[in-house]
Amino acid sequence: MSEYRFTRRVQFYETDVAGIVHFSWFYRYMEEAEHALWREAGLSIHPHDSEIGWPRVSASFDFHRALRFEDEFDVWLRIAEMTSRRIRYACLLEQDHTRIASGAMTIACVRKRPDRKLEAIDIPAEIAARFEVHRT
Amino acid sequence: MSEYRFTRRVQFYETDVAGIVHFSWFYRYMEEAEHALWREAGLSIHPHDSEIGWPRVSASFDFHRALRFEDEFDVWLRIAEMTSRRIRYACLLEQDHTRIASGAMTIACVRKRPDRKLEAIDIPAEIAARFEVHRT
Amino acid sequence: MSEYRFTRRVQFYETDVAGIVHFSWFYRYMEEAEHALWREAGLSIHPHDSEIGWPRVSASFDFHRALRFEDEFDVWLRIAEMTSRRIRYACLLEQDHTRIASGAMTIACVRKRPDRKLEAIDIPAEIAARFEVHRT
Amino acid sequence: MSEYRFTRRVQFYETDVAGIVHFSWFYRYMEEAEHALWREAGLSIHPHDSEIGWPRVSASFDFHRALRFEDEFDVWLRIAEMTSRRIRYACLLEQDHTRIASGAMTIACVRKRPDRKLEAIDIPAEIAARFEVHRT
Repeated sequence: MSEYRFTRRVQFYETDVAGIVHFSWFYRYMEEAEHALWREAGLSIHPHDSEIGWPRVSASFDFHRALRFEDEFDVWLRIAEMTSRRIRYACLLEQDHTRIASGAMTIACVRKRPDRKLEAIDIPAEIAARFEVHRT
Repeated sequence: MSEYRFTRRVQFYETDVAGIVHFSWFYRYMEEAEHALWREAGLSIHPHDSEIGWPRVSASFDFHRALRFEDEFDVWLRIAEMTSRRIRYACLLEQDHTRIASGAMTIACVRKRPDRKLEAIDIPAEIAARFEVHRT
Repeated sequence: MSEYRFTRRVQFYETDVAGIVHFSWFYRYMEEAEHALWREAGLSIHPHDSEIGWPRVSASFDFHRALRFEDEFDVWLRIAEMTSRRIRYACLLEQDHTRIASGAMTIACVRKRPDRKLEAIDIPAEIAARFEVHRT
Repeated sequence: MSEYRFTRRVQFYETDVAGIVHFSWFYRYMEEAEHALWREAGLSIHPHDSEIGWPRVSASFDFHRALRFEDEFDVWLRIAEMTSRRIRYACLLEQDHTRIASGAMTIACVRKRPDRKLEAIDIPAEIAARFEVHRT
């Protein structure tokens, strides 16, 4: 798996008093695509009682156009880079083939220690084997 | 402890395209007051690694007036009833002494079992001792 | 139209540190079903520049079981009562035919006045004609 | 005005099943600081019936450490750059002088046209006069 696409509709509670989707929601849309990509790969990013986790290292969006209540839009997430410990995604939101927003997100593989600190570890081989960098 | 009051300002991300606070936020305002009440009582409602939890049994609001971006309002939470296993709160939101919304919420004490099922248990004595029903 | 059903998956950002869906989300699930019901009836509950609105008068949930990350569940919304000025919905959330939560919500038809006050009005005939009370 | 600092506590509904604040909330924390900065400058970023608006052009965060339920943390927002049409903020979240996250956000001044399109305009002089770039 190297990419995932889905279509989604803007919910009322995602809008704000300016009449458009609040920008914090775009990061959630990107994450929805990420988790769906993992399910497509036969994985859950957060299995119950797992010792490893995937905290976000960075996340960014450039916003080109607004989305409004009940708009339908497409989310396209692809794997832009994989290292031994991190995955970087690129994300594009479009509406009728018009660019709405372009995002990026990097996640790291960590082990949860008993003191609740997170220790960076290599991505387990059985997970790394399910993903590959998207060739454009 | 039998009650808690605080003042809060409406954040931009709590509003919706109708120009008012989305109704789902009122339940979060009520919960903010609950957790502050517990802190005032020297407790956390969710200590790290606790075996007991406090799921919501029911929650309701009657909405009288709208709140808008940057409005300041008061939240008043009080304990309306305590049984061996449950606490019922009543909540009033006001703005300049005008009633905005009236809520209620009941929580139950549960033990988290290894199979992730939740088992109703008596409220531990050291917690019950910190709270009492509010006399109006 | 008198009812609407849909299936939905729990998103990561809907969960909380207790490991379950935060209760405030159930009200949003209920609203998602409401707006989908209106779309099925050929309407939008919030058309651009409309002079009328549908504030929530009351909303409540009884919570029976928890939902967790990536759980799939069913939302069933039905119109329980219609008066000249209000609509009352009943809502049931189920997972594998097990009851998760039971909700209710009442909305009122209002006209937005220039002073931003909301004035209760009769539901326009062309809207009322699209809906009917659900016969169980 | 060139900067704003405030202290905030993590709310329960801001956490997720991984036990930490969901990353989407950091963008809201940054926005809370922005709107408080504007209030300190005697302005509202969204006055009722204003013809101008301030959509986000881009927003990013690097995440260094996790925040957990009831943690107190500091948000420091400063104006990093101002042009005739845009403001760029830098944001630092700290807990006990430990860096939690570093963010940036650029906003643009727009006029809302009757067709709902947003037209980039110069920042009104009376607004620009209230702010200045922060000297580190």
